[in-house]
Amino acid sequence: MKLYLATSNRHKVEEVALALARYGVEVVAVRAEKLEIQSRSLEEIALTAAKNLREMDAPVAVEDAGLFIHALKGFPGPYSHYVYDTIGIPGVLKLLEGVEDRRAVFVSVIAVKTPDGRVEAFRGEVEGNITREPRGTRGFGFDPIFQPLGADKTFAEMSVNEKNEYSHRARAARALAEWLMKNFQATSRIE
Amino acid sequence: MKLYLATSNRHKVEEVALALARYGVEVVAVRAEKLEIQSRSLEEIALTAAKNLREMDAPVAVEDAGLFIHALKGFPGPYSHYVYDTIGIPGVLKLLEGVEDRRAVFVSVIAVKTPDGRVEAFRGEVEGNITREPRGTRGFGFDPIFQPLGADKTFAEMSVNEKNEYSHRARAARALAEWLMKNFQATSRIE
Repeated sequence: MKLYLATSNRHKVEEVALALARYGVEVVAVRAEKLEIQSRSLEEIALTAAKNLREMDAPVAVEDAGLFIHALKGFPGPYSHYVYDTIGIPGVLKLLEGVEDRRAVFVSVIAVKTPDGRVEAFRGEVEGNITREPRGTRGFGFDPIFQPLGADKTFAEMSVNEKNEYSHRARAARALAEWLMKNFQATSRIE
Repeated sequence: MKLYLATSNRHKVEEVALALARYGVEVVAVRAEKLEIQSRSLEEIALTAAKNLREMDAPVAVEDAGLFIHALKGFPGPYSHYVYDTIGIPGVLKLLEGVEDRRAVFVSVIAVKTPDGRVEAFRGEVEGNITREPRGTRGFGFDPIFQPLGADKTFAEMSVNEKNEYSHRARAARALAEWLMKNFQATSRIE
C-alpha cells in the first residue's frame, strides 16, 4: 500500500520509508501546506496538522519530533528545529556545560489522515544521553549529540538502518504500520 | 471606544491599557481560543490568530512579542515564552557568557480584527542590550535582562509608565490607536 508523507525533510522520508518497507508500505513524499501550531505537545501539533490536510487517495501522514532534555525542563522540545537553526548544537552544549545529568528523550509523533477522514497519532520515543561533543556526520538536527541508551554511537554515527533500530521515528512509523495493516489490509505484511 | 484584548497576561493588559488611555480607548481583556501557529514572523503569528478570532461588537486584538538577540541569530524570538519557561533567564545569560555583542530587539505585533471582519497588524520595536545579570522585579519574562538604548534601567526596574516610553508593546499599541482613531472616529483623541 501507499502512504503519503507531508514533509520536505529527505532524512525523515528515508527513515520512515526504510522502517515501513518490510510492511510493504511505499512512502511517497508530498509537499503540502501544513498548519503547524505552537504547543508543548507533539501530539497536538501533529494531530492539528493532520486534521487540516486535505484527504487524499491514500493515507497521508505528518511527523513532528523533538529532543527533550531533562536538565533543561524539556528544552528544546517541540521547537527543536528552530533552536537548531539559531543557537544550534554549540548552544545546547553550552547550556549543558557543567551539567552532570545528560539525560534526554527523542520523541516522534506521526499523525495520519485516512482517505475517509479519520485521524490517528502514533508516538515513538528513545531515551539517551547528550554527549559532551558532537560525533558523526550522518542524519540531521541534533543527531550528532544524541547517543541512545545501549548504543556506543550517536545517531549521526549510524547508518539509517542502525539508527532505525533505536530511533523514535522508526518506532512511531512501526506503530503506524501496525495500525495501517489492521485497518487497511490491502497488502499483507512481508516478514 | 472599546478594544478587546485577547490575552490572559495581566502585564500586557496593563501596558496596552495605559498606552491607549490617552486616546480614549478602553481596553477590556477577554479570554478567547487563539490559533497560535509556529512561524519566524510575529506578524504571521498575530495575523493568523486575529483572522481566526470570532468577530465581536468592538475591535478585538491579539498581541505577540519576542526578544530577538543578535548574537544568537534572533533566538529566542517568537518562542520567547517557551524559552523563558524552560531555560529561562539563567539559560539566556549562559548562552551569552563570553559574548561581547549584547544587542537585542524586543518586538511586539498587535493584530486587530474589526467588527466588520477587517484584519490589520501593527509593529513596535525597541533596541537595547542584554545585561550581564538580571536587575529589577517588575514586568515579566525577559524584562530583567533587557535595557533599552538611552535608558540606564532594565524594563524590570521601570514603572509601567516609564517602560511605555520605550517599549515595543506601547509603540505597537500607539500605532494601533492611531489607526483606530482614523477608522473609528467614535471618540476623539484626548491630548
